[in-house]
Formats: sequence, C-alpha cells, structure tokens
Amino acid sequence: MSSKFDQLKQECYDANMELNALNLVVYTFGNVSAVDRKEQVFAIKPSGVPYEQLKPQDMVIVDFDNNSIEGNLRPSSDTKTHAYLYKHWPDIGGIAHTHAKYSVAWAQAQRDIPIFGTTHADHLTTDIPCAPPMQDQLIAGNYEHNTGIQILDCFKEKQLSYQEVEMVLIGNHGPFTWGASAAKAVYNSKVLEVIAEMAVLTLQINPDAPRLKESLIKKHYERKHGKNSYYGQ
Amino acid sequence: MSSKFDQLKQECYDANMELNALNLVVYTFGNVSAVDRKEQVFAIKPSGVPYEQLKPQDMVIVDFDNNSIEGNLRPSSDTKTHAYLYKHWPDIGGIAHTHAKYSVAWAQAQRDIPIFGTTHADHLTTDIPCAPPMQDQLIAGNYEHNTGIQILDCFKEKQLSYQEVEMVLIGNHGPFTWGASAAKAVYNSKVLEVIAEMAVLTLQINPDAPRLKESLIKKHYERKHGKNSYYGQ
Amino acid sequence: MSSKFDQLKQECYDANMELNALNLVVYTFGNVSAVDRKEQVFAIKPSGVPYEQLKPQDMVIVDFDNNSIEGNLRPSSDTKTHAYLYKHWPDIGGIAHTHAKYSVAWAQAQRDIPIFGTTHADHLTTDIPCAPPMQDQLIAGNYEHNTGIQILDCFKEKQLSYQEVEMVLIGNHGPFTWGASAAKAVYNSKVLEVIAEMAVLTLQINPDAPRLKESLIKKHYERKHGKNSYYGQ
Amino acid sequence: MSSKFDQLKQECYDANMELNALNLVVYTFGNVSAVDRKEQVFAIKPSGVPYEQLKPQDMVIVDFDNNSIEGNLRPSSDTKTHAYLYKHWPDIGGIAHTHAKYSVAWAQAQRDIPIFGTTHADHLTTDIPCAPPMQDQLIAGNYEHNTGIQILDCFKEKQLSYQEVEMVLIGNHGPFTWGASAAKAVYNSKVLEVIAEMAVLTLQINPDAPRLKESLIKKHYERKHGKNSYYGQ
Repeated sequence: MSSKFDQLKQECYDANMELNALNLVVYTFGNVSAVDRKEQVFAIKPSGVPYEQLKPQDMVIVDFDNNSIEGNLRPSSDTKTHAYLYKHWPDIGGIAHTHAKYSVAWAQAQRDIPIFGTTHADHLTTDIPCAPPMQDQLIAGNYEHNTGIQILDCFKEKQLSYQEVEMVLIGNHGPFTWGASAAKAVYNSKVLEVIAEMAVLTLQINPDAPRLKESLIKKHYERKHGKNSYYGQ
Repeated sequence: MSSKFDQLKQECYDANMELNALNLVVYTFGNVSAVDRKEQVFAIKPSGVPYEQLKPQDMVIVDFDNNSIEGNLRPSSDTKTHAYLYKHWPDIGGIAHTHAKYSVAWAQAQRDIPIFGTTHADHLTTDIPCAPPMQDQLIAGNYEHNTGIQILDCFKEKQLSYQEVEMVLIGNHGPFTWGASAAKAVYNSKVLEVIAEMAVLTLQINPDAPRLKESLIKKHYERKHGKNSYYGQ
Repeated sequence: MSSKFDQLKQECYDANMELNALNLVVYTFGNVSAVDRKEQVFAIKPSGVPYEQLKPQDMVIVDFDNNSIEGNLRPSSDTKTHAYLYKHWPDIGGIAHTHAKYSVAWAQAQRDIPIFGTTHADHLTTDIPCAPPMQDQLIAGNYEHNTGIQILDCFKEKQLSYQEVEMVLIGNHGPFTWGASAAKAVYNSKVLEVIAEMAVLTLQINPDAPRLKESLIKKHYERKHGKNSYYGQ
Repeated sequence: MSSKFDQLKQECYDANMELNALNLVVYTFGNVSAVDRKEQVFAIKPSGVPYEQLKPQDMVIVDFDNNSIEGNLRPSSDTKTHAYLYKHWPDIGGIAHTHAKYSVAWAQAQRDIPIFGTTHADHLTTDIPCAPPMQDQLIAGNYEHNTGIQILDCFKEKQLSYQEVEMVLIGNHGPFTWGASAAKAVYNSKVLEVIAEMAVLTLQINPDAPRLKESLIKKHYERKHGKNSYYGQ
C-alpha cells in the first residue's frame, strides 16, 4: 500500500541501516529520523525492532507534537527528543542517536571532547559539548521531551550554533547528531565516534596534550566549509 | 533418531552458535544451556567441541543433580554450576558463560562494574556484582557445584534479586548470565560485555567519573521494564 | 579514452583502494599518489570522492608546480604537499596520507614514537619523528605547500634521511609516508599504524619502558636492509 | 613433483595459514614450523612471502643444523631459532612466532604477564615469562641461533619446564610458542594473545590487581590437564 510518505520512509530506513552497517549500534540501541519540512512530519525507526527485520514501511510518521500520523508500530522511545529538535531547529533534515562506545564513554565521563587535531577541526571548530545530566524534576517529568530542552539549554549556555556544531553528548547517556539530511546525521555519528576514539588514545599517550591552536582550527575548517572551501568536488 | 528433547537441544544449540557469532568466545571457552522446567532437565554444550563441528544432537541432556539423561558426549565442565542455578532459581530458562575479554578483565580486577550510564541502567539498576574468589576449602572440593554456591552467596550478601540482576562476575574467572530463555542469557552476555567495555573507557577518560544518579537509574530502567514501560512493541 | 598516463593512474588507484582495504581510512580521509619521474608528473586521488565510486580514470595528473595536467576532477586538497615532496626528494615513487587512529593519536599528542622493539627496528632505526605544529604565518599562507616545508624542516633539524625514514607525523594532524612506489608508501602507512598501536599498549603496561638498545636496532635493521640482509627472497 | 615430506609441508602450510586467519600476523611478520622427529628435519615458511601467494610445496625442509634439505626458497629468517629449540627440546612437534600486538606490547614492556585469572590458569600455572634482551656480544654473533640460547637460559633461570609452559616472550621482540604439533603451537599463540590483552585491560581497571591464588591455579590447570582432567571429550 503506497503512501505519500514512502520516499521519506525510505530515506529514514536507509539511514538506520547505514547506522547499523557502520557498527555504531548494538542490538536496537539507536535510531535515526528524517524530516519532511513541508508536511511538518518526520519518519523514525520503530522501537525495539531488530535491524534484520526492519522494512522501509515499518518507519513511523510522527508530527512535531508527537502525534503518530501513519504506521502500525510504536515509534522509538526517543521520539519526543527528535520532535523537540525539529520544532526548534528549522534547518535540520535528520537526527541520529547511538550508544556507540567511545561517544558514550565521553558522555559517561561527563567531559567535552577537546579539539585535539585536524580530523576534529575538519568538522567543527569547538570542543564537542557534553550537556550536564538533567535535573531531577525534569527526569521525573516528560523525560524525552526534556532531553530536547537539555540540548538547547546546553547550546545556549555554551553559545554554540546548531548549524555549525552538529553533535552533542548527553551526560551519562550518549550522543545525538544531526545534519541537512538523515544520511548526514549518520555521517556525523560516525565522525563523532572516530574523533572520540582518537581523543581517548591521545590522552593515553599524553595526558597533557594541548588543544589545537586557533590558527589551525580556522584553517582546517575553512578548507572544508565556507565560501573559499576547496575540499571535495 | 528423534528424541523428546529435540526442541530443547535445538534452542541450546542456537544459543551456543549465537554466542560464537557475537564474538564472545575464543575456541571453546564458553557454554550455554537451556532448561525444560516440566521435565526438570537442561540441555548443555558438550565439553571442548569446536563450534564449527557442533550439531544440535550433540547437546547433552542433564538433570538438576548432574546425571546425564541423554547424549553420548561429556557435558561442559561447568555443568554443575548450571545445575545448581537451575535448582535454586526457578524463574530462569537459560544460562550462559563466556571468557569475553572486557567482562573477564573486570572479574580479574575483582571490581564491581559501576553503573556509569543509561546503557547500563536500561538493563539493571545496580552495579554489576563481582563475587569474591572462592575460599580454599571450597576450591579443593566440588568446584563447579561450589561456584553455584558462590554466586548465590554473593547475591544474598549484596541483597540482589536474580530476576532483576541477570548477570554476575566470578572474581578471577569471568561472567555468568541468565534470563527467561537461553537466547536471553546470550543477549545478557553481550550487553554485559558492551557495558564492561564502556566502563573501562569511561575510567580512562575520567578516573573519578561519578555513578549515574538515582533519578536517572530509575527513569531508564522503568522505560524498558515494569508496568509503565514504553520501549519495544 | 586512453591516455599515456593510464598505467600511472592504475598504480595510483590500486594503492588508494589498498589503503581503504587495510582499514586505514574512514570515509574519504586519506589519499595516495604515484609519480612518473620521466614525465615529471604524479597521479593523485580526486578530493572527497567515496572509495566505492572511484575508478582508475578518476585519478588526476598533476605536475610538481601543482598544475592539473589531465583529469576532470579536483585533486586531493593535500596535493601541494605531495608536489613539494616529489620536487625535493628525487628518490621517492609514491606518497600516502591517512587519518589512521593510532598514528593520529601520536600526532595529536605531539610525541615522537619511541623505538620500543624489533617490529619498529625492522623498518627504521630511529624514533618516528613528529613535526611540531606549523607557525601561524605559514598556516595563514599557502598551507599545504608549507606542510611540505614543515616536513623537510623536521628532517633537517633531526638530521634524518628520507631514504631511511619513510614516515613522519605532522603534529595535531596525522601521518605522511612514502617509498619507492605508491604500494610501498601504503605498506609504510600500515606498518606505522601497527607500530603506533604497539607503542601505546607498551606504555600502558610500563610507562617507563626503555627504548630498544643500539645493538638490537642495528641488528634488526640489517637483517632486512643493506648488503648483508637475509630477509625475503 | 611429490616428496616424502609432502605431509610435513602440508601440516606446516596449514598452520601458517591458520596463524594468518586468526589475525595474529600483519603482512609476513610471523612463521610456523612442523617437525618430523624420525627424519630429524622440520618444514618452515619461506621468508617474506605473502600469505595469499603461499603454497604447501613452498615450505622449506631444514635439518637441526640449519642445512636446507629441500625447497627452492630461502627459509624464514628465524629458522635458526626453530632449529635450536627442536634440537634441545625433544618433545615439541611445532613452533610458532608472531608479532601479535598485545604479546609484543608485553615483550616491549619487558614484563612477565602475571597470572590474573582462570583463562590463563587453564593453560599454564605460572606467569608467562619474558626473557630479558640479549647481551650485546650475542646480538653481534649468530643472532637467531642465540635467540634459541636466550630462551633456554630464561627457562633454566626461572626453573620452568618447556612441556608445561609452551610460550615465551623475547624482551623487545615478541612471542614464541610451541606444542605437540604445529597446530598446537598456533593455538598457543592465540591463547597467549588473548591472555595478554585481558591482562592489559585488568591493569587498566585495577593497577593493583592481585595474582590468582595458588589453590585456583592448581584447580583450573588440573581440570584441563593431568590424570584427573575432565575437560573435553
């Protein structure tokens, strides 16, 4: 049975399968969504379904107020976090959440990931922010919705732009990443995991390793981004 | 030649093969069993047979007093530990034992695995217990039987429920996990290994990383378990 | 459409694909080039093209002054570094650059990799040099060209020979390796990554691990190199 | 062309290919030999030949005084070490040498691997010995022959039996393992690597982790070895 959301579901399905292929998830511990800005809805993975059994038509269509619009399955338990971000950040096209081990380790350590090198600077110019654990009254309340608030508060306090910094760690929990599309959000999850692993290794070799200096941060970021970029085709 | 235990053997075989497919065992260093509560027997992997050579009919049927009921091969050398747990814990349907490296490392370090994050809290609300090494007179005696006693003593002393905490580390040795079925026991072995690795990495980044706070432990556990759970289908 | 550079492009393509097959790159974060000394040009990977989509004819032909000689795609953003090295080091036939994690970690830690053992000594007799981060006025200038200068300055200051030491770490960035051919440059990238990982592990076990003594460095290097070598066929 | 050593070459070839399949070697950095006690010769991998190109008939037949008996290729550069061990240890049937990373890291750290747990005790009852680096006059001499002396001296000084301890680390270099057959030697190389990795992780979690107590060492070893063993079929 065809639906006007078939293309959106396919994009969401492909991105979820890619997340799994990149070894960023164990069992069902992760989810990706893709948004349709015109229809003000997003497609998201159903909750707790093994990747091998997933089909494109299993993706659930949800609006920004968390109403299920289409689909027989229960959407991911993190759906309200996705909805909150789509509602408040008009420029993003996809969101990914994983429990990838190095990203989770930094989140559990409650530390921002320092910008140690050019692999990091090729993608963003700041440390990767780790939002502090949620306050108790918010946890007891609408938890996943409040996770969205937690992320926006973190970006406000650290004066970060969600267009420039496309990733965050939730203290004690794990990473959320986003981007212009669901595929770009998954790409950012992989990049974050690689940077997180390199940073652990860097500290093992030199616990006093310095952050990258400003001139190099600027140079590498501009190689890949901005009007004078010269990376890619 | 068919047997009334064919289905039980198949469940046991599948779970053992899954343990191997998940990279939780090297050579033959692991075993899974599956119980039939009505017949008061369990199927278990034969001792020291390579996974590539295993066949469902090789599984050995043993009763709770360690008598071989069916099968031509010698059962796993850890059989008496399985029997002891089945006899004393009426609600479990399967047991798994591995020498997976991160789980073994915590066992060798003789440390409980602290609950550092939500990946852990999604599965249990306490640190993962590490039973202290066995006393010398018990080692010299009926060792594998006494490993069962060692596990129950550990749970009694720490006031843990085996229905809520489905995993334990034996100091200096390695993990045992269990669950409603053999497949669930294997799932728990994998989850334990993932949590064990994340915890090592967390301590490498921040040796003073705090335990997860109680409000988050409660919230995450209730998302997946209990009457108001909303994870899965 | 055939070209007199078809063989050079094929050598370059094969070496880039091998870099990927050896798990030394994530996404497009790496590049290999191969030189034709007679024609004074080299073939290099195009910028930002996924490995699965690469074809031999996509390789770009560039001369030592960074002029594109043949090809429709933009060459790697690191092309000027390759050109600089080919221009000043007449004996090299290929160059590789990766963001392999252990090599990057040492570069981010801004540490030379100490010669801890014979795996290292089989390939070179000195610590693996880490060039200090570039000075700000050079970064603001012709960055990739200046990376070439940075490498030559490092070798001059440390009195190293590029024929004997076929690898370098750029502080905060990552490794460059080279050799008699593009395939040998890729081989050296893999060897460097293996040595880098072994050195991290060595320091984890013994932070005071001593460097290999001179007599053993000399012996192992001479087994594989020089006129009395007796390794290989 | 058939030879009376065809079976020996095949055993040697199979064991070398298994070493590679177990991810214990990079490129050609490893070798396995198999002995024929009646003929007083052994088959060994040729030096520097990639595994993908190896054929059973490439294996070189060498006697215990290092004379090539059959084969067109130059034998492994470590051949004299193998010959020395076969000559002095009449009960071994095969020898393996690798540069596997965790084993090498302990060798480079110049530390015995402490017996931290039962995975270790299932295979041997002592720490895994690390022979101190060779004295300068021996290095300058007949190096690979003297590596054999170095191993026997280590076992003599530490009062170890080569029948009970089937593995050693050469300080700054890497592991040698042996056993009743070439396949058993390869098995021991894998077991050593697993134990070496678990021991690194154990120290990361608890730098003061205690050695396994004597009663448990004895119990686990006897489960798998000796007249009352009850592991396997």
